[in-house]
Amino acid sequence: MTDPALPARHDFLRRHNFGLVLTTIAARGPLSRAQLAVDTGLTKATVSQLAERLVSCGLVRELEPARGAVGRPGSPLELDRKGIVGLGVEIAADYLAVCAADLSGAVVIHRVEGRDNRGAAPSAVIDRVAALVHAVREDLQATGRSALGVSVAVPGLVEGGHTVRLAPNLPGWTDLPLAAHLSVALATQLPIEAENEANLAALAELWYGIATDLDFIHVSGEIGVGGGVVVDGAVFRGVRGFAGELGHVTVDPAGPLCGCGSTGCLEQYAGQDALLRAAGVTGDSSTRDGDPNGPLRELVSRAEAGDERTTAALDAAGRAIGLAVAAVVNILDVPTVVLGGIYAPLAQWLVAPVEAELRLRALANRWDPVTVLVSTLGTQAAVRGAAGVCVDRVLRDPVSYFPVLQLG
Amino acid sequence: MTDPALPARHDFLRRHNFGLVLTTIAARGPLSRAQLAVDTGLTKATVSQLAERLVSCGLVRELEPARGAVGRPGSPLELDRKGIVGLGVEIAADYLAVCAADLSGAVVIHRVEGRDNRGAAPSAVIDRVAALVHAVREDLQATGRSALGVSVAVPGLVEGGHTVRLAPNLPGWTDLPLAAHLSVALATQLPIEAENEANLAALAELWYGIATDLDFIHVSGEIGVGGGVVVDGAVFRGVRGFAGELGHVTVDPAGPLCGCGSTGCLEQYAGQDALLRAAGVTGDSSTRDGDPNGPLRELVSRAEAGDERTTAALDAAGRAIGLAVAAVVNILDVPTVVLGGIYAPLAQWLVAPVEAELRLRALANRWDPVTVLVSTLGTQAAVRGAAGVCVDRVLRDPVSYFPVLQLG
Repeated sequence: MTDPALPARHDFLRRHNFGLVLTTIAARGPLSRAQLAVDTGLTKATVSQLAERLVSCGLVRELEPARGAVGRPGSPLELDRKGIVGLGVEIAADYLAVCAADLSGAVVIHRVEGRDNRGAAPSAVIDRVAALVHAVREDLQATGRSALGVSVAVPGLVEGGHTVRLAPNLPGWTDLPLAAHLSVALATQLPIEAENEANLAALAELWYGIATDLDFIHVSGEIGVGGGVVVDGAVFRGVRGFAGELGHVTVDPAGPLCGCGSTGCLEQYAGQDALLRAAGVTGDSSTRDGDPNGPLRELVSRAEAGDERTTAALDAAGRAIGLAVAAVVNILDVPTVVLGGIYAPLAQWLVAPVEAELRLRALANRWDPVTVLVSTLGTQAAVRGAAGVCVDRVLRDPVSYFPVLQLG
Repeated sequence: MTDPALPARHDFLRRHNFGLVLTTIAARGPLSRAQLAVDTGLTKATVSQLAERLVSCGLVRELEPARGAVGRPGSPLELDRKGIVGLGVEIAADYLAVCAADLSGAVVIHRVEGRDNRGAAPSAVIDRVAALVHAVREDLQATGRSALGVSVAVPGLVEGGHTVRLAPNLPGWTDLPLAAHLSVALATQLPIEAENEANLAALAELWYGIATDLDFIHVSGEIGVGGGVVVDGAVFRGVRGFAGELGHVTVDPAGPLCGCGSTGCLEQYAGQDALLRAAGVTGDSSTRDGDPNGPLRELVSRAEAGDERTTAALDAAGRAIGLAVAAVVNILDVPTVVLGGIYAPLAQWLVAPVEAELRLRALANRWDPVTVLVSTLGTQAAVRGAAGVCVDRVLRDPVSYFPVLQLG
């Protein structure tokens, strides 16, 4: 009796096992084939066979055999960091960024261009992104590297990994099929996906930053304020993928009108423009092409000089962040907060008011205080998370990028 | 070569399969053994063997064979609803309730006793609960039924299924090992667990109420305001089990002081006492032993009569609920809200302001509006959910209640 389902099942298992070997090397490498067999539960023969193919595709490389080892040492395997990269793009209200990361997630190229994207048509922004990506790909090619996918971080609600439903700080970015447009602009078959920037920033903190193995909410200050909730090692996206819109949690219903149409949103107290206005830093970031960090640096130096208006603005922003995060803690019982984006360099003025509001407003805080951490990635987190997502997809399912792995 | 792990593994599978058969009958019964084999993926011989034992323990019963069926019809199996019940208890600020539910979740006994539990010592409340449970168990015994477990709904933060960390509306209920105390007071070996009342109410809406198969937040109005978030068929409990504390989300930081120590909590606008005060209904519910629904009925009749102070109070409460729920929608992307507890009979005055605030403040609401539903279980939801949790545990793992199932 033959079972027509069997070959398909065998293929499926083999496909799964390629990912298993690769993610195990990523998490614990360098590893010998024998250790890989132990760690994956596969036979040594299977591991050797899979590894040979991963090496031939440039995903894994063989190190020199360990010297002085007893018996036949075998060459340890590690990720091949010389060839394949993931490309991350960030479209922020006031800058564009592109990042290429190797298979370990390490940054190979990182470029930021200050730009007022709020005053530009989406198509012009997409064309500029395409030009930046194109330049980065040429530089990669010159060093023998190539990208396997592009992931785009957007400050708004992204549906299905492809369409921007709404980006409150990017007028005109409504119901925009970003992935499709960018595919056309890049004239590429590369897989392209879009995702909320705060979710990607949170993943970067989980993978490369301060929050390894934690459950946390990452609060990222930019022009807007993003929230990314990580529970059990994954971003909590909600039913439609719109979870984590912390910037539009109401801090005070009698507060100022927000671009989203509501009143008293967190963004109106702790977004970058609101902070600059309250601190009296002249002009907001939308007027500055060029260095996107200029206004932020001015804010930091004023605070360091003890300027009262600035420290009062930061205290009020910290209070507002704390109030909104207390709502998250009351609703979700998240034990850790990571302050990221522009809040990282401002943390010394923000942590105390955030903690004070948490003590006051988060019910569980009194016997098990929420831990407030400061991002080590700052405003780079979203674009690094975007590049990391591409790499993560390759590691989990290399066969979908290299169908040749399955042949023969 | 013998493997010492094998018999244990066989036992584990068998234990799992008892639960599989029982939950399949619960979800889709009555079912023939043949259909059960198809639905569970087990062989018909295994199904017959497991079913025979489930029948002998009083968990399943055999119906008359279907008449006129072709071939050997076989007797369909359904849950035995005559013997085993789960017991639910609710300790509210202003009443106690006990509910016995059969294996299908149907209510066998439901008793409510108005009582001011805020003015009583925890030990006195626990003694009164024990007396009520004792009386219900005697009545059950008289009809040949018996309880397999007790689950207690508490308006506060419950850790580990046994200890009340904090109940803002029950002074003195701090770090109280409720399950252990109740075990002693009942002098029983029955498994006893405690859980946040809002989480249990949400499960009742999922299992028996308006929210079958939905992702939703259940907002339950009582003296306090509870929130229970259900995603993918399970309550989202958070890392420590304290998720869903909607009543202490800040509606207005300049608002009145709350019992929890914070200011402007939702409870101060939409909790039962706040509502009664704002509507001018004399005295709050804490002064009334006896009928716990008296003040609520007065509120409803005033609203029905068009009393302006009452409808204004309900409008303000609805606005406050809508603001807090908008925070939940922004943070979690939950597409449905169920108004429960005292909000069910008040829904006709609450739904419009709740929806208005969601339109204003929930970012995703404009192209995919949040659905506002009204609980069909009202203030019975928590105690029915508590009884249901006991039943659910029996259905999922009958062997832990009837070790005899595994023998021989």
